Amino acid sequence: MADKFMSMRNLKFTLFSRKGKYPSDNPDYLKDHTPKTIDMVFKAAAELARKAMHPMFEEMDRYSPTLENGHVHVHEGVRPMLETLGQDGWIAAGFPEKWEGENMPSSLLLCINFIFATANYSASVYAGLTMGAAKLILNFGSTQLQDTCIPPMLSGKWQGTMALTEPEAGTSLGDLCTEAIPMEDEKYKINGEKIFISTGDHDAVDNVVHLMLARIKGAPAGAKGISLFVVPKLRFDDNGDLIGNDVIVTQLFHKLGYRGAPITGLRMGENNNCIGWLVGKKHKGLSYMFQMMNNARLEVGMGAAAIATAAYHAALDYCRSRHQGRKVTAAKDSKPIPIIQHPDVKRMLLFQRAVVEGSLSLILQCGMYEDILGSNPANKDCHLLLEILTPIAKTYPSEMGILSTSAAIQCFGGYGYCDDFPVEQHFRDMRIHTIHEGTTGIQGLDLLGRKIVMENGRALILLKQEMEESIQAAKLHKNLDAMTQDLTQAMAILEKTTKDLGALAMEKGPEAYLADASLYLEMFGILVIAWQWLTMADAASYAIKTKSQGQTKPNKKEILFYEGKLHVAQYFFSHELPKIKGLSKTLADKTQVTLTMPDACFTD
Amino acid sequence: MADKFMSMRNLKFTLFSRKGKYPSDNPDYLKDHTPKTIDMVFKAAAELARKAMHPMFEEMDRYSPTLENGHVHVHEGVRPMLETLGQDGWIAAGFPEKWEGENMPSSLLLCINFIFATANYSASVYAGLTMGAAKLILNFGSTQLQDTCIPPMLSGKWQGTMALTEPEAGTSLGDLCTEAIPMEDEKYKINGEKIFISTGDHDAVDNVVHLMLARIKGAPAGAKGISLFVVPKLRFDDNGDLIGNDVIVTQLFHKLGYRGAPITGLRMGENNNCIGWLVGKKHKGLSYMFQMMNNARLEVGMGAAAIATAAYHAALDYCRSRHQGRKVTAAKDSKPIPIIQHPDVKRMLLFQRAVVEGSLSLILQCGMYEDILGSNPANKDCHLLLEILTPIAKTYPSEMGILSTSAAIQCFGGYGYCDDFPVEQHFRDMRIHTIHEGTTGIQGLDLLGRKIVMENGRALILLKQEMEESIQAAKLHKNLDAMTQDLTQAMAILEKTTKDLGALAMEKGPEAYLADASLYLEMFGILVIAWQWLTMADAASYAIKTKSQGQTKPNKKEILFYEGKLHVAQYFFSHELPKIKGLSKTLADKTQVTLTMPDACFTD
Repeated sequence: MADKFMSMRNLKFTLFSRKGKYPSDNPDYLKDHTPKTIDMVFKAAAELARKAMHPMFEEMDRYSPTLENGHVHVHEGVRPMLETLGQDGWIAAGFPEKWEGENMPSSLLLCINFIFATANYSASVYAGLTMGAAKLILNFGSTQLQDTCIPPMLSGKWQGTMALTEPEAGTSLGDLCTEAIPMEDEKYKINGEKIFISTGDHDAVDNVVHLMLARIKGAPAGAKGISLFVVPKLRFDDNGDLIGNDVIVTQLFHKLGYRGAPITGLRMGENNNCIGWLVGKKHKGLSYMFQMMNNARLEVGMGAAAIATAAYHAALDYCRSRHQGRKVTAAKDSKPIPIIQHPDVKRMLLFQRAVVEGSLSLILQCGMYEDILGSNPANKDCHLLLEILTPIAKTYPSEMGILSTSAAIQCFGGYGYCDDFPVEQHFRDMRIHTIHEGTTGIQGLDLLGRKIVMENGRALILLKQEMEESIQAAKLHKNLDAMTQDLTQAMAILEKTTKDLGALAMEKGPEAYLADASLYLEMFGILVIAWQWLTMADAASYAIKTKSQGQTKPNKKEILFYEGKLHVAQYFFSHELPKIKGLSKTLADKTQVTLTMPDACFTD
Repeated sequence: MADKFMSMRNLKFTLFSRKGKYPSDNPDYLKDHTPKTIDMVFKAAAELARKAMHPMFEEMDRYSPTLENGHVHVHEGVRPMLETLGQDGWIAAGFPEKWEGENMPSSLLLCINFIFATANYSASVYAGLTMGAAKLILNFGSTQLQDTCIPPMLSGKWQGTMALTEPEAGTSLGDLCTEAIPMEDEKYKINGEKIFISTGDHDAVDNVVHLMLARIKGAPAGAKGISLFVVPKLRFDDNGDLIGNDVIVTQLFHKLGYRGAPITGLRMGENNNCIGWLVGKKHKGLSYMFQMMNNARLEVGMGAAAIATAAYHAALDYCRSRHQGRKVTAAKDSKPIPIIQHPDVKRMLLFQRAVVEGSLSLILQCGMYEDILGSNPANKDCHLLLEILTPIAKTYPSEMGILSTSAAIQCFGGYGYCDDFPVEQHFRDMRIHTIHEGTTGIQGLDLLGRKIVMENGRALILLKQEMEESIQAAKLHKNLDAMTQDLTQAMAILEKTTKDLGALAMEKGPEAYLADASLYLEMFGILVIAWQWLTMADAASYAIKTKSQGQTKPNKKEILFYEGKLHVAQYFFSHELPKIKGLSKTLADKTQVTLTMPDACFTD
């Protein structure tokens, strides 16, 4: 297996090349974290990833979790990994000092989870899910719930989960029907069934705490009647001993990939003895959950970018070392060349870099907005920017990651289709991301149906301002002239499409407006990633200029890195950005066949 | 599992809607096969597929072949399946009467293999590979080789394979180094190694016959020194008994999908006792192999279309029966609707139909040219049309099939990621097709570097004439006006791109010309499939018109089928064809980053 699964240089370059209204050479939003301390943290994370996660990358897939006598068994390396993550403070890092955390900014947490996920995606989700669940308890739970749950969760001894999906309701959360019957105080009897619960049960922890959506008996129908509960696998009895809480594992899903993490079905209250603790106020569950959802969706995009990054590095390594064929202009009896020298292979590598580095950049852009917002929750502009970019940061890496990992397979030829190399696993692991935490279709509806129209379209105006600032900054570099022009033109195309769709909504109603929302999301995503590439090209151009003129002798390898960035940016602008031409034409098509084709015509 | 994995109605519609210079209401090229006899043959094939192949679709994947003591064991259902295929004449169908065949046209063989492959792709390749190998022996082998090998192969008792790839040479066949040392007559001692040999060894047959490329000792270097041999697993001794031929299975590849068929590594001559029989003339091996390659590539495209077809039918079935969510305009307390009614789900189904039905149509278009050429090998026009379309017929279904099966997964949501439904297996089975029988990169070079320039570009001129005839025919239907205009415009864009690339070749040489050949292939493919959709829309419009005006009462279900065709054609023209806008822009880009980026810039 390839030794390298990520580039530390690229991660730091990306973190420190944020632009826009919030300049970032020594960015405020990272608080007291300096490039030097960040370097130390990232190195420690990479070391842990290499030692505790990467060695079991293949094994966790080949020997995936099993369900025996109602208990889920996972790889024996998961427990010591979680213990280390707990002991060394990685799970608590984003929490306040009270919980022995360090209040680490979201941006840095995203980077750390990125490092973990490049090493072993399945391994990385255990702690990630616990962090999310503990954050919900911290933000909305009672003091008692906090005191009971947060310490063992942050120490890696208890697993946290998000338990939303039900067999019949799926994406349509308003239809869920797990029932909660009031007992005393904040206690409720829980009765119902959940499916697709990631890390829903396993033997690498002593307990599992489900953050579960349910409907209190007599609550209003639909989304407004849903409350949030803590439903543990084991609960404390009056003596302070952990006893069963009537949560049964009904099934373990056998999946295409992402096999190192158990995804379970759960049955609560089979013996009418399952207790849940209300989190926050009654009937507010969905809004609590959705306050966490932006971050959860960023994490999905980050996971997708991480998997595709690992696949890219494996492919790059192979393309450098594998000799085959020769240039079309070479003598027939010349020696075979490394396949990276074939333009089509180079194209596939450029494509992967364009996708994975562009995706990472967008995710850290969102991380920055999260952090600014964290310091100042009243910053409405930042909130809106985060709102409009989240569906893209979730979807672009996930959708394009399928193609990117597929390109990694293609770089290997037949070997890529075999499990001697890690890329076929990356391809399988990747495929979940367009589905979990809201499918691509849902993200499209969210972007066009909610984020574009909220506050009279102010989010798009703010985003345009951000892009314009980046364009102005990039104009200082003459080599970026063509890119700034292309991005300006692309923005105009998006604005026209948005306006035309608005007119369509007025004329024909919301269904016509939203019919091709997924394509609008796709088009929007390409534009946003082009913007990110421009900011990276800007930062790279700046670095080349200053390093060349600096006192110290320019480091040749660094210069090559920055020149590489410029080439990949060029690739994005010449090979990816033009796709919006076709998409804008499709979105302008009046026939709207996705709306007008009768179901009955799907005959044969 | 969904019961339906293909549509017989659609297969027959597609077969009988060929247009162009060779009208096809009762087409000559199908010889004495009438719609009635064809119907009988297809029904019998579907029956066999349903009974002997489909029931082991999952099992062949879950319990994939094993290698024990040098022998490969496959699913126990493979042997009876091959016996049936042999006894009932399916393997021999395309062969002359002398071999108890029926001289069945290629078009019909493609249809039959399509039916088999929709039921169980892995199961379908065993007989398909035997047919191809036996055909090579028939066309170029000695009478003795024919008499020895063809009968047991066509009876399903012996397996045939194509043994080309070697560990170091891969795609670059000219570099292969398996050696053949002359013995007597046509016998040679064989020494070397092969990898990725499909059905290279297994226990469902009594012998395996490898059609193997090797280099006779002292032969010229490169492609011109390669000869073709029959190298059997077992050979006859002087008593007429089968004895070992020193062919050792070195490994069994563990693959992402396509797991029901064993792919092996082979070592010939470990004990200097492997004998091969020369097929045809010395040093002509590659040209013999390439005469079979067009058909082999069509079969790959067909296989890809078949897998995506099966995935589409599974997704369609699910989307009709699964109720979730409601229309954006519906009351919140209304009942959940079948998800096929959501425009985004409909879009994904339309996309799949557009890909799979368009692909099948192109493959049968190529089958028609093969059959016309079979009757009259001097028909140079047909030959050129087949030459230019083959890389597209191989690649479009394979590349788009990845996206199509991925869309099938997406239709199922989380369930699609689990092995409770067949689509995750289809997604895995699909991924081999852009690799085997020449990668997409190789197909791009073949199209742009060879097919476009051969005979002064005559193939493209002929293809344009074919398209123009289709456009003229479609102009009789007013409802197709927009499509005929769009296709005409798209052809002009392709011509301009081709011309510009020609100018680039003159100015900057072949490397610049071929740098983005894969994208040219992609663009060309979209145009060609648009043409196929226009011919299908033409045939559907004609059918609606005649059926509505006919003596007999129009069958409502049939009308819905034809109207469905028109909607999917509309989808292709509004959602897929516009992609050539972006591609033509990319191909016109002067920076040529896939050529100019230095390898050294792939640092970090």
